[in-house]
Amino acid sequence: MVEEPKPIGELWALQNVIERLFASQTGARVTLDNGKSTTVLKGADAQDDCAVVGVSGQMDLLLGSDYVRGARFDLYSLGLLSNFDLGWYLSAANFSDVAAMGGQPVALLSVIRYPPDLDESEFVDVMNGIDEGCRSVGALNVGGDIGGAERLFLSAAALGIIEPGRALLRSTAKPGDVVCVTGPTGVAGAALRYFRQPQDQRGLSREAEQDLLRPWRRAEARVAAGRALSTSGVAHACVDTSDGLKGALEAISIRSHVGIVIDATALQIPTLIGAVAHLSRIDPLELVFGDSVDFELVFTVEERALNHLETHFSNLGQQFQRIGRVIPEEHLLLENSQGVLSPIPGQPWRQ
Amino acid sequence: MVEEPKPIGELWALQNVIERLFASQTGARVTLDNGKSTTVLKGADAQDDCAVVGVSGQMDLLLGSDYVRGARFDLYSLGLLSNFDLGWYLSAANFSDVAAMGGQPVALLSVIRYPPDLDESEFVDVMNGIDEGCRSVGALNVGGDIGGAERLFLSAAALGIIEPGRALLRSTAKPGDVVCVTGPTGVAGAALRYFRQPQDQRGLSREAEQDLLRPWRRAEARVAAGRALSTSGVAHACVDTSDGLKGALEAISIRSHVGIVIDATALQIPTLIGAVAHLSRIDPLELVFGDSVDFELVFTVEERALNHLETHFSNLGQQFQRIGRVIPEEHLLLENSQGVLSPIPGQPWRQ
Repeated sequence: MVEEPKPIGELWALQNVIERLFASQTGARVTLDNGKSTTVLKGADAQDDCAVVGVSGQMDLLLGSDYVRGARFDLYSLGLLSNFDLGWYLSAANFSDVAAMGGQPVALLSVIRYPPDLDESEFVDVMNGIDEGCRSVGALNVGGDIGGAERLFLSAAALGIIEPGRALLRSTAKPGDVVCVTGPTGVAGAALRYFRQPQDQRGLSREAEQDLLRPWRRAEARVAAGRALSTSGVAHACVDTSDGLKGALEAISIRSHVGIVIDATALQIPTLIGAVAHLSRIDPLELVFGDSVDFELVFTVEERALNHLETHFSNLGQQFQRIGRVIPEEHLLLENSQGVLSPIPGQPWRQ
Repeated sequence: MVEEPKPIGELWALQNVIERLFASQTGARVTLDNGKSTTVLKGADAQDDCAVVGVSGQMDLLLGSDYVRGARFDLYSLGLLSNFDLGWYLSAANFSDVAAMGGQPVALLSVIRYPPDLDESEFVDVMNGIDEGCRSVGALNVGGDIGGAERLFLSAAALGIIEPGRALLRSTAKPGDVVCVTGPTGVAGAALRYFRQPQDQRGLSREAEQDLLRPWRRAEARVAAGRALSTSGVAHACVDTSDGLKGALEAISIRSHVGIVIDATALQIPTLIGAVAHLSRIDPLELVFGDSVDFELVFTVEERALNHLETHFSNLGQQFQRIGRVIPEEHLLLENSQGVLSPIPGQPWRQ
């Protein structure tokens, strides 16, 4: 027997869903290295006007906000991402901002507006995705605004905490710093380029296609790496690659009034990127640098602190790659194996 | 000479707008009665991944989120609300959630997605509206997510603070409590009903029409009243009337497992509501109780604490009206001057 999808829209039914999904958030605690902590006193299950989070003492709050929708969600429209994936993505995108500042995620506030044709089980999938995405970084979805709209629309705000004065900024890179990244970039953008082609023109194996979709399905905010950076005490500037690697380098360049030279021989180019670039007949570096929401962290650090940072990362099970250096002149340049400099290829995300 | 509207969408141009609008937020401080405070360390002008807000010690954070768009923004589509008004409304709607918990607003995070045909000056109007709305309650718009979309879309999250354990909940009404409201309800809903009619069927004076539009143009989060309630130490349950008066009473009833009897003779019915009800040939009480986003606060308090609360409010330049009482049975009832009980009329906001 196939059950009819049950439409949502009756407020009390919806509240029952929320009560069931978000039961017993009260008491969840997030603690910093200095012993200060936050505790969820009233979560989404309380269904009050606001969530209430108790703060035990001096700390800095990190507040970021991200909208998930629009042209970049072609993969959802194509049926390649589920409602759960979208929900997870909303959490990851928002907590990536907290990770980029070196903070510990505490809570997510979500705005979920759903179209009339979304049924209750699909809605629950979105909410479960958000919830799991939050839990994966030790945070909770403490509520927000839920209701109807013309189309599915997801927006959220993240709360994170960090020891006072320890937030990693974009504006603190110094000439002479080494530029590093926590992982390869470009796969998310390559996936978009690949799956936007008609199905008969794709040509990768089913397994490779699944690998291409992974950064969209289970995007990962680099919280542990961000914490490693902030607790190391040696990192200078930091930003996430949610606007692509070139976008991240531009952000540091503009905010710190410096330039960056990337060493082409130090860049990791995943096999998948090579394959998509080959199929699309473009330079793989366009994918590595271009618009791709990979949520890696790009940061700068003094060269003499690099060994200390490597050890600190290694002790925490984290890693990074050195990919370039900061220069005083405000240019973004790529240096090839012969030492020849050229502009960095690729288009960062705009809007 | 008429200048061409300048389209937005070039990220650097947009960032210049933001830098200009939100210059020097750093150092803004919000202090509680117990001396604890928050300080904006990095605001929107820093253009980092997150805003950074320093916390000086033990306090409770209030986090709420509200979307502004959809069917209720007919007045914008009709040209009766400006872009500035919409921005202001976004702030007010979000801070009303903080007010309803008895908190002090600190910061707003906003998600602004604009359509291709919105020009730079219209965008600046939206941002100025948000900014002024924030300043009117002593808070700042510390940033968020700005970019393009198919249509204008506004969403935000508010941060407020309150002394530990003092947040006003929906779930704490007690049978025997008196029910009060900080002001008349229904005008915002009456405005929608009135202006949705064809222009030749309206029939109010231009001045009355302006009065009807006021709650939409300059919606006011009842922060001072909320603070008066939380600092009084005697308020039980509290909720705002953003879903209408009946919606507010339902929220208290459901969350506190109580009922409420409203005294019809105690209700204020503004002249404007009488006029719109007359033109629409409906019972004015349908407007007073129904879907109307007035942002008043509905609260309950023990009868013996009422005098103390009145004095406390009066000392702070605030006021409220007693309109009913809490009963053990979970019914919402209206009592007329003869003591006859009937169901409360009006439709609360759904979705």
